[in-house]
Amino acid sequence: MKLYIGNKNYSSWSMRPWVLLTQADIPFEEVMVRFDAFTPDSAFKTALKNISPTGKVPVLQEDDLLVWDTLAIAEYVAERFPECELWPHDQADRARARSVCAEMHSGFGALRSACPMNIEASLPDTGALIWRDNAAVRADVERLVSLWRDCLRTSGGPLLFGNFSVADAYFAPLCTRLITYTLPLPEDISAYVQRVLTLPGVQAWMEAARAEHDFLAFEEPYRLHR
Amino acid sequence: MKLYIGNKNYSSWSMRPWVLLTQADIPFEEVMVRFDAFTPDSAFKTALKNISPTGKVPVLQEDDLLVWDTLAIAEYVAERFPECELWPHDQADRARARSVCAEMHSGFGALRSACPMNIEASLPDTGALIWRDNAAVRADVERLVSLWRDCLRTSGGPLLFGNFSVADAYFAPLCTRLITYTLPLPEDISAYVQRVLTLPGVQAWMEAARAEHDFLAFEEPYRLHR
Repeated sequence: MKLYIGNKNYSSWSMRPWVLLTQADIPFEEVMVRFDAFTPDSAFKTALKNISPTGKVPVLQEDDLLVWDTLAIAEYVAERFPECELWPHDQADRARARSVCAEMHSGFGALRSACPMNIEASLPDTGALIWRDNAAVRADVERLVSLWRDCLRTSGGPLLFGNFSVADAYFAPLCTRLITYTLPLPEDISAYVQRVLTLPGVQAWMEAARAEHDFLAFEEPYRLHR
Repeated sequence: MKLYIGNKNYSSWSMRPWVLLTQADIPFEEVMVRFDAFTPDSAFKTALKNISPTGKVPVLQEDDLLVWDTLAIAEYVAERFPECELWPHDQADRARARSVCAEMHSGFGALRSACPMNIEASLPDTGALIWRDNAAVRADVERLVSLWRDCLRTSGGPLLFGNFSVADAYFAPLCTRLITYTLPLPEDISAYVQRVLTLPGVQAWMEAARAEHDFLAFEEPYRLHR
């Protein structure tokens, strides 16, 4: 299996399946396609021309099969490697985990837009301004807190559905944003964020992100340089 | 199983699982919660208070399990009723069908925003203006055409993956929009749209939508009255 991804510092959607595969010890080949630009003639779009039907990453390739969305990749990998139990074993828990991931897939727009992923950056002042002025971001974080708390209470932790599952991989990029922008969190939720950030698969991604030393102005609404 | 939905004329997300269940002959109880408004004290939000964790529809309830997103509902129902073969049988086809649904789940934003679902309305002039002036809508339709054509060519039709699957239910609301706004389509794609719109499950939803006679100004950017 080959996984096409974007810059590790910036590409939150790439992070999800990469962390899922890595944390579950599923072997794959990583193909990193740098975000030079997103114009039709960019090196990025050119490299993905015959790989990604949407021109976006991530894409999973296995022989002549292309799977071009994070949720579809998660389902495919969960089917191919049932022994990894990437979804919770219990059917009702599995339905809840899928609801949680689907909510992430199309939701939390305010938080994603105001606080783009930027693992190597530390932007507490920017975060404080966003927190003061952006009610939609506060509402997104409030929902996150309630969602995570509900999952952790039901499962007993340490992760959303007990052991590591697709749901934790799905929220890992949000966990990095909460740290980059130092958004205020209740203690139990901070503790969950720390547990996600210390998973070996998440650590490996974050270390690689910090080692990139790449600065892309269109991904940096808050910085002029590194 | 109970399925909570919104107005049939307007709620495109409600339409997807309703069509899926109906077309597959899976028995369920429908609970329609009218879109009076989306403010916290609206009758809509009040009715969903203890049902929908996100305050949105659709939600599927079975005993004390709540499944609160269309994709999670599709996966849950596909697991509960494997004999209905709601996903394609072949693993690679299934991965492609899930990619297609996930792309719909978080994509086609321009088309969804400029052309809200409104089954009973006929807005060809509005559609012609949108088509002339909105390049992002044209790009969304271009992608739809290419995606559907690719699926139909691979499967041989008549539906995206041969027989009816989650993917067709997922695109049914878009098919109604293409008709409401009379957007121009190549002949092979028009024929697919017609095949979807004549599925009994889709017909049943559309007839009920036309019978609602409800006019909600906040869902009607292009009309002052019916």
